[in-house]
Amino acid sequence: MNEQEFVQYLKRTFPFTHGFGIGDDTSVVKVGDSYQLITKDILIEDVHFRLEDCTLRELALKSLAVNVSDISAMGGTPQYFYLGLGFPKNIPGENLTQFYQGMEDGCRKWNIQLAGGDYSSSEKMFISITLIGTASNPIYRSGAQTNDLIGITGVTGESAIGLKLLFKNIKNGYFIDKHKNVEPEVEKGKILSQYAHSMIDISDGVLLDLNRVLEASHKGAHLFYENIPVTPAMKEICRSNQWNEYECVLAGGEDYKLLFTISREKNLELLQANPAFEYYLIGEITDSPGTLIVEDKNKPIKLTSLGYDHLLFREKVGKKLLIGED
Amino acid sequence: MNEQEFVQYLKRTFPFTHGFGIGDDTSVVKVGDSYQLITKDILIEDVHFRLEDCTLRELALKSLAVNVSDISAMGGTPQYFYLGLGFPKNIPGENLTQFYQGMEDGCRKWNIQLAGGDYSSSEKMFISITLIGTASNPIYRSGAQTNDLIGITGVTGESAIGLKLLFKNIKNGYFIDKHKNVEPEVEKGKILSQYAHSMIDISDGVLLDLNRVLEASHKGAHLFYENIPVTPAMKEICRSNQWNEYECVLAGGEDYKLLFTISREKNLELLQANPAFEYYLIGEITDSPGTLIVEDKNKPIKLTSLGYDHLLFREKVGKKLLIGED
Repeated sequence: MNEQEFVQYLKRTFPFTHGFGIGDDTSVVKVGDSYQLITKDILIEDVHFRLEDCTLRELALKSLAVNVSDISAMGGTPQYFYLGLGFPKNIPGENLTQFYQGMEDGCRKWNIQLAGGDYSSSEKMFISITLIGTASNPIYRSGAQTNDLIGITGVTGESAIGLKLLFKNIKNGYFIDKHKNVEPEVEKGKILSQYAHSMIDISDGVLLDLNRVLEASHKGAHLFYENIPVTPAMKEICRSNQWNEYECVLAGGEDYKLLFTISREKNLELLQANPAFEYYLIGEITDSPGTLIVEDKNKPIKLTSLGYDHLLFREKVGKKLLIGED
Repeated sequence: MNEQEFVQYLKRTFPFTHGFGIGDDTSVVKVGDSYQLITKDILIEDVHFRLEDCTLRELALKSLAVNVSDISAMGGTPQYFYLGLGFPKNIPGENLTQFYQGMEDGCRKWNIQLAGGDYSSSEKMFISITLIGTASNPIYRSGAQTNDLIGITGVTGESAIGLKLLFKNIKNGYFIDKHKNVEPEVEKGKILSQYAHSMIDISDGVLLDLNRVLEASHKGAHLFYENIPVTPAMKEICRSNQWNEYECVLAGGEDYKLLFTISREKNLELLQANPAFEYYLIGEITDSPGTLIVEDKNKPIKLTSLGYDHLLFREKVGKKLLIGED
């Protein structure tokens, strides 16, 4: 069972009648005049992080940030959270305090509050956060419409480069900082919720997350790589390490920028009302469900060049995906 | 830092302004005309359960049940939940299906729904559930009043005996079944919410959980052991194994009965309106904060006879606790 089949299995087996349940960045339940958003993300030692790579303060902040990002991706405002913490006995008690200091910093930074939770010793550390938010007009993955423009709110691939450097035992620097310090796009998400048809945060890479939008919306897409921002520093570090730039930019995860689709008219309205709003239009939505074409200056990018085994990638993002297959 | 100091630290460090946050069975936030209850409990392999002791279906049901019990302890109705699951790669995929079948059974049993969550592989299995519920009149731990009667809704100690048997490698039987199959007292909780001053579920033993009520309410208590139900089968298994009966009944956890305090007048009203309601009045609330006296037929029960080291027990339940010290 791949991820998509698993989600389908869950949706079929566990119908949700209070609102929108499984299958987006958050669940959505109408409460009074607005909508309550709830998201849950788990982070596990040696699966999602290594303790030697970050301080516990950084880890606390990141575990909050990835949840805040899910609320942002619906165009919502985060409010309060529940923390489930498994903490190894061999970590000294002072470090637990550092972890909670990171939580405090996160509370101030995103104006959120700790509302409850549970604590236990465990062999490996894990962090399970349930974050509650609110939105007056939540934006789903499923709203993409044919001929929508596809936008992203910033550079992708920097976090993936940071992770590659960490695995080379480099401990500091710009890219590692990008990997460790997630800056969820709360304000941009709120602005976009007034204009966008669909939205998602880029946690697993542009292609995987765009594909989630396409699957939910029953659409296809055409991406123009030359429109995707790649900084000179990224180009240089990829060249000097012989890393595949396409792979970093299109398939690298954990940048937590927003990906959205928007009609041409609404795009103009967005620009007029928010002249300082930074984003990049990288492609458009097509009427061919399951077809994702990625071109770089009119030349299709080959799937294998993204570092994915063809079948594996199909397995991972869905059965009918084509990326510039020629 | 003991548990109580830890909770105090969290309450001080993380003020909560949306309603009632840390320090009860659930958080409580006013939503429209009623209150939203949210609770989060984590279960970790080899900390809270051993995979060899239960099927994954039983484990799924129990992990839901302990959360449902928290909602019951506020007098609420459980509605929907978020599941964070860490699942070891070496467990076959069919077993994952068994786990979700248990979740399905739980959904039917308690009329709740799965609303979302997160999934990851992990070395040890863990289950992190956030359950949402609603209550029109939530009952807190902090409401106990002097001269209140103390009630429990059923027999305690059976689960602890079941756990002792599991550790003796006995696999089946009445007590083990009680340990594995938690039956939260949702209906009783709802009825009690109309009469009780304070309420908690007994997850960590009568004494520890009563002490949480006393701390929150700034009261003391006097317990009469002879009023606490102990079945002939419990007496016999304790006798034949030379287990301390007091310890099983008063300090054994995971029975998930409700403990409540109620005025004499309200107790009569409860009885009159619900003649079939089964519960036991086991003591009364006193005006001596931090003093918990437990007597068996006028003879104080000694702390050490409960299997606790004196200092350890003080550490665990609070500094001023006295249990029949003579």
